[in-house]
Amino acid sequence: MKKISILFLCFPFLTSANDSVTIRKIADHILTRGNCYENLRYLCKKIGPRLSGSDNAAKAVQATADMLRMAGADTVYFQPCLVPKWERGSLEKGSVKVNGKKHTLSIASLGNSEGTGGKVLKGDLVEVRSLQQIHMAGWDLKDKIVLINIAMDPKKTRTFSAYGEAAGGRVRGASLASRYGAKAVLVRSLTTSLDELPHTGVVIYNDSFPKIPAVAVSTKDAEFLSTGLAAGKIIEVTLKTDCRNLGEVGSFNVIGELRGTEFPEQILTVGGHLDSWDLAEGAHDDGAGCMQSIQVIETFKALGISPRRTVRAVMFMNEENGSGGAKAYLQHAIDNKEHHLFALESDAGGFTPRGFGLDMTTDQMNKVIQWKYLFDDYLVYDFYPGGGGADIGPLKSIGTALAGLSPDSQRYFDLHHASNDVFEAVSKRELEFGAINMAALIWLVSEYGL
Amino acid sequence: MKKISILFLCFPFLTSANDSVTIRKIADHILTRGNCYENLRYLCKKIGPRLSGSDNAAKAVQATADMLRMAGADTVYFQPCLVPKWERGSLEKGSVKVNGKKHTLSIASLGNSEGTGGKVLKGDLVEVRSLQQIHMAGWDLKDKIVLINIAMDPKKTRTFSAYGEAAGGRVRGASLASRYGAKAVLVRSLTTSLDELPHTGVVIYNDSFPKIPAVAVSTKDAEFLSTGLAAGKIIEVTLKTDCRNLGEVGSFNVIGELRGTEFPEQILTVGGHLDSWDLAEGAHDDGAGCMQSIQVIETFKALGISPRRTVRAVMFMNEENGSGGAKAYLQHAIDNKEHHLFALESDAGGFTPRGFGLDMTTDQMNKVIQWKYLFDDYLVYDFYPGGGGADIGPLKSIGTALAGLSPDSQRYFDLHHASNDVFEAVSKRELEFGAINMAALIWLVSEYGL
Repeated sequence: MKKISILFLCFPFLTSANDSVTIRKIADHILTRGNCYENLRYLCKKIGPRLSGSDNAAKAVQATADMLRMAGADTVYFQPCLVPKWERGSLEKGSVKVNGKKHTLSIASLGNSEGTGGKVLKGDLVEVRSLQQIHMAGWDLKDKIVLINIAMDPKKTRTFSAYGEAAGGRVRGASLASRYGAKAVLVRSLTTSLDELPHTGVVIYNDSFPKIPAVAVSTKDAEFLSTGLAAGKIIEVTLKTDCRNLGEVGSFNVIGELRGTEFPEQILTVGGHLDSWDLAEGAHDDGAGCMQSIQVIETFKALGISPRRTVRAVMFMNEENGSGGAKAYLQHAIDNKEHHLFALESDAGGFTPRGFGLDMTTDQMNKVIQWKYLFDDYLVYDFYPGGGGADIGPLKSIGTALAGLSPDSQRYFDLHHASNDVFEAVSKRELEFGAINMAALIWLVSEYGL
Repeated sequence: MKKISILFLCFPFLTSANDSVTIRKIADHILTRGNCYENLRYLCKKIGPRLSGSDNAAKAVQATADMLRMAGADTVYFQPCLVPKWERGSLEKGSVKVNGKKHTLSIASLGNSEGTGGKVLKGDLVEVRSLQQIHMAGWDLKDKIVLINIAMDPKKTRTFSAYGEAAGGRVRGASLASRYGAKAVLVRSLTTSLDELPHTGVVIYNDSFPKIPAVAVSTKDAEFLSTGLAAGKIIEVTLKTDCRNLGEVGSFNVIGELRGTEFPEQILTVGGHLDSWDLAEGAHDDGAGCMQSIQVIETFKALGISPRRTVRAVMFMNEENGSGGAKAYLQHAIDNKEHHLFALESDAGGFTPRGFGLDMTTDQMNKVIQWKYLFDDYLVYDFYPGGGGADIGPLKSIGTALAGLSPDSQRYFDLHHASNDVFEAVSKRELEFGAINMAALIWLVSEYGL
């Protein structure tokens, strides 16, 4: 009797010797005949930057639907969503006079930022090194342009932690400085590199205060300006930008499904986001995650693997500046009473995977960790609490177990939101190993549930 | 009594809470003030390719001695060794006529290869896909030019295994084909990429047979030629090269020491190789390993860490085409009855580390594995039997425990021995994490012995 009860308890999570065989087949297929890398080349080189609401984003919607059909998805469909339409314009320029000597800045307006309307905006520069220092400076910021110089901490091994700590300056710094009368902010780019590239990213305004222009400056420029101010120099900034917000427009998530053979109502989502910033090809952020998700479908079809639960590859729209796609995906799930058992996101770059962040119950986590040995041959070893991702995060509210692929993060912020996030920066094998581990985890959950 | 004996047994390998503090200091120092990346820039951009016996190799000897002095080594010295002097020449050209239609090949003579003496060598192409097929073809190879088309297996997770399996064709294929009267060999480049770059590497001739020209062809050319032959096309190869062997010349290993405070006679070697192929800057292979080894010395000095055992950073000369430096290092150790307790090599690229390969007794391995938890925060988790490296390998004969840093290997063969192994392909943080783990392991052995 005892034996039976143990069997009963364990059965849904038992793995078999065949599991490692199946995962080996998945890996061999992807490493020899996978097409995620060539699909990524198409997305990056034939379409390019895919800012929400842009023509390119619309092209990417069509292209990934085609890729999902080619991959063999049972059903491919578009899920409507609303996204902000923001345009950088073409006038973007910044410079400083340091004690009268001109220096051109390497800048990029932050996403969703107000511009200067194509007019010249001038002001003297002051520096803060934390959000708290904005409060401390208070009305000393009036009519100034504020350098928000918050560096990512190089001592953090997990670069995403360093990013998380420093990102508040970019996201909320503009409104905070505006509260005390500042005219504009220059935000130190969020990168672990010391380089000449401005790294954009979203700004979120507090409606209570005037929306002032917010631009990223390269880390080298931030260091240059900071050194100048520390030496007591007077730095006058000149900004001219014509970025503008054009309101909300319609767009789509792109979804491809393999219907489950036994529990079709149980949905396993695997996805990335299709939109990117406008400065680059969005190869790592997040063309990689999208192409890997399509690779999961393609691999199952090519190998004749029929998942017991429904597998959905989702190209989320608008992760970068509004999460319109993620909101629509959740709303659709609620409206249709869908049962979202599990969701896996890849939005941390197409680098060699190291693990999975798990945001689920302790029981579920223990079950996933039972499978850890199955990943040993494919470079994944680190199963840790936390993770998920911006696009699947909302599903937590309906009880979905979440996981995020965790690739090596040391190079990510060298190119995050900057012009060097291009196809050439992605390694075929690294991308493929990500897809292998995603396919393996989705397959295990499809077989055994959670 | 029993308690005492346990203490006695364990004491030399006990770690303390301070160990993690020390290693944290090492990591923080390297991530914030390390100079391995800037030193690598100098080595790659100011000196460049460093083939053994070349002027650049001599410059690199002087430059790394200066770096070791700047790092604060107690003693810096040159250890004489003999190296082959081989020159590629400037005429290197290859083409084929496929059913009369000309196609230019992307070639590079293999290191130490004989050339065609600047004269045109022509012959019809035949293909083999293994060394065994050379024997099977036998005298059918007479007067032919042989395409040795042995691909690295993409299914291997550890790319070095795939390299090891395929490298025999490059190293020994020429003499084997020559045995049956072949005129020359074209060797498929050893890379996991499908690209246009020839990847060179050493050829070793068997003196019993004529030394025929051996050149690498790009993987794309290998595929092109193979497809043509499979379609029954007649392919005539034209080769012209003027590479030449100029005999042995003198060169040096460069050594910087920190003398041990308690057991100075016990030597811990940490090293990489200073020579590189002539096609590129040798950034990953192996400028990275050299700069990381110097970083170990610099870090100990900067942090006031006085190792109990002697730490020697060694820039080995001539790993690529003769191992003259490694031989001299062993001979010097034997002649001077040096006690080489431990040696650690970094010669697998400057990518994010994942582990250490350990070539030592089981007892020693168990002791090292006791320290595994100290590496958790620095991305290293994989301690496995095997490893070491070509330059420290000879020390095994005198009982030295060996270890090799094992970085992520997915991108390595994209650039191994090819023109794209340049400084820009190295990530600062990835390089630094290698150095952190090397410094930590050297420090632990220095504190606790083995």
